[in-house]
Amino acid sequence: MAEPSKHRKAKPGTLIIIGGHEDHDGDCLILKEVASMISNGKLVLATIASHEPDGYLEKYQTSFARLGISDVTELYIEDRLEAGLPEKIAALEDVQAVFFSGGDQLRITSQIGDTPIEERVHQIYEAGGVVAGTSAGASAMSETMLVRASNSASYRLGDLQMAAGLGLLPGVIIDQHFAQRGRIGRLIGAVAQNPRVLGVGIDEDTAIVVRDGHFRVIGSGAVYLVDGSGVTHSNIAEGEPDTPLSIYDLRLHVLSSGDGFDLQARRPEHADGQRT
Amino acid sequence: MAEPSKHRKAKPGTLIIIGGHEDHDGDCLILKEVASMISNGKLVLATIASHEPDGYLEKYQTSFARLGISDVTELYIEDRLEAGLPEKIAALEDVQAVFFSGGDQLRITSQIGDTPIEERVHQIYEAGGVVAGTSAGASAMSETMLVRASNSASYRLGDLQMAAGLGLLPGVIIDQHFAQRGRIGRLIGAVAQNPRVLGVGIDEDTAIVVRDGHFRVIGSGAVYLVDGSGVTHSNIAEGEPDTPLSIYDLRLHVLSSGDGFDLQARRPEHADGQRT
Repeated sequence: MAEPSKHRKAKPGTLIIIGGHEDHDGDCLILKEVASMISNGKLVLATIASHEPDGYLEKYQTSFARLGISDVTELYIEDRLEAGLPEKIAALEDVQAVFFSGGDQLRITSQIGDTPIEERVHQIYEAGGVVAGTSAGASAMSETMLVRASNSASYRLGDLQMAAGLGLLPGVIIDQHFAQRGRIGRLIGAVAQNPRVLGVGIDEDTAIVVRDGHFRVIGSGAVYLVDGSGVTHSNIAEGEPDTPLSIYDLRLHVLSSGDGFDLQARRPEHADGQRT
Repeated sequence: MAEPSKHRKAKPGTLIIIGGHEDHDGDCLILKEVASMISNGKLVLATIASHEPDGYLEKYQTSFARLGISDVTELYIEDRLEAGLPEKIAALEDVQAVFFSGGDQLRITSQIGDTPIEERVHQIYEAGGVVAGTSAGASAMSETMLVRASNSASYRLGDLQMAAGLGLLPGVIIDQHFAQRGRIGRLIGAVAQNPRVLGVGIDEDTAIVVRDGHFRVIGSGAVYLVDGSGVTHSNIAEGEPDTPLSIYDLRLHVLSSGDGFDLQARRPEHADGQRT
């Protein structure tokens, strides 16, 4: 059997994986959850996914200041060489929480993949810290990540770009802006490629809080779990790129605030922790 | 036990249920399927769903003329009283095929529900004829039909308007423009209300051809089947209208051209007719 991935050991930290457009003006439930896990008042905002991160830092500084986190600093990596600079690495010293903002997930992985910055993010997580990510920052969490595909269209066999992600949460494919951009088709396509991965589609202003192999849902929308383990037929490996997907016997769960999920057992859990 | 609905007896006709925007310029696969079932060259285009059906007749006349159907006439019902007029009823004499075009499905049912026109449509179907419908004309086929709800959003408990449909295809809820308008959330909501009904979401330029309890898929997109019979939990009957839906253990099939489905057994069938 193959050596398990270096990122597969038990993880004592917390991931907060957000479907984009988390609330900054109202209850700020999701940002509040992030803030509640920081004991030293310090957060690093990694704006690496963005080509033009102007204004991101100010926005998050303002929101987090209201939630008691006064020390929000930015980590931006313009190009890959910067990911080895001592001052960039130093920006993650004494940090318990990193928040990846949105943009393009390929920018995150291409700029920091296999660099000291990525290593440090894993260390923070393994030491019990928090790694949060919204939109592109959410997608990048998985081992294999969805890069792009059509929105609001049924999946065509040739229509999916995937890439290696940060590997913080193995065994899943994450998609974001999920209901808002009509992405069920592309997530089903990703699951069809290999039903070993569980499809996790997260709505805007909605997040999963992952710890110790379980997650719970927070925020105003829903989280869709596409489980292909029972699939009896698919045409994913046949046909031309323009052929529409055909797949039978997916299992689908729709979770919302108060629901939880056991990632190992692939079973939803009620708010009271009871597995169904 | 309740008397079975008057529309529930075995149906020897064919329904062609189209997700909207069927091709009129290229292969016209779906219109060709309709045309292939008409032996007397005669089709009635029921434009009742539309508030402004100008141009519909000409468009369908042109397309069907190319497919060998030269006698396409329009049936429009401006208001409900007209549905009893002898000349309107006469328009459906010697007709084997009726095609409901798009618009608002509530217009179809409110104008012709429980009128001689509706009765005549059922008679045509029961005598082995074809009833086709696209978009609103597709939605109206079921016993209970989806009228409106948000597109591209996860279902909220209060966010669904349903009404009694024409009842040509019992036991299902049909939704159209399915992937294009991101409607999986609302279809799941409809199924959650009563898992007795099978959710059928049909993409644009895609249709199901229903005969004798089975259907097959034609066209360029996909058909989504949401089967709630195994659901283990949902919050549909709890909570405030704005609460997002939570539902566990839906079964989901994605079918495309060449796939079929056994409506009684709720099982997909391969192109060769084999059940999985």
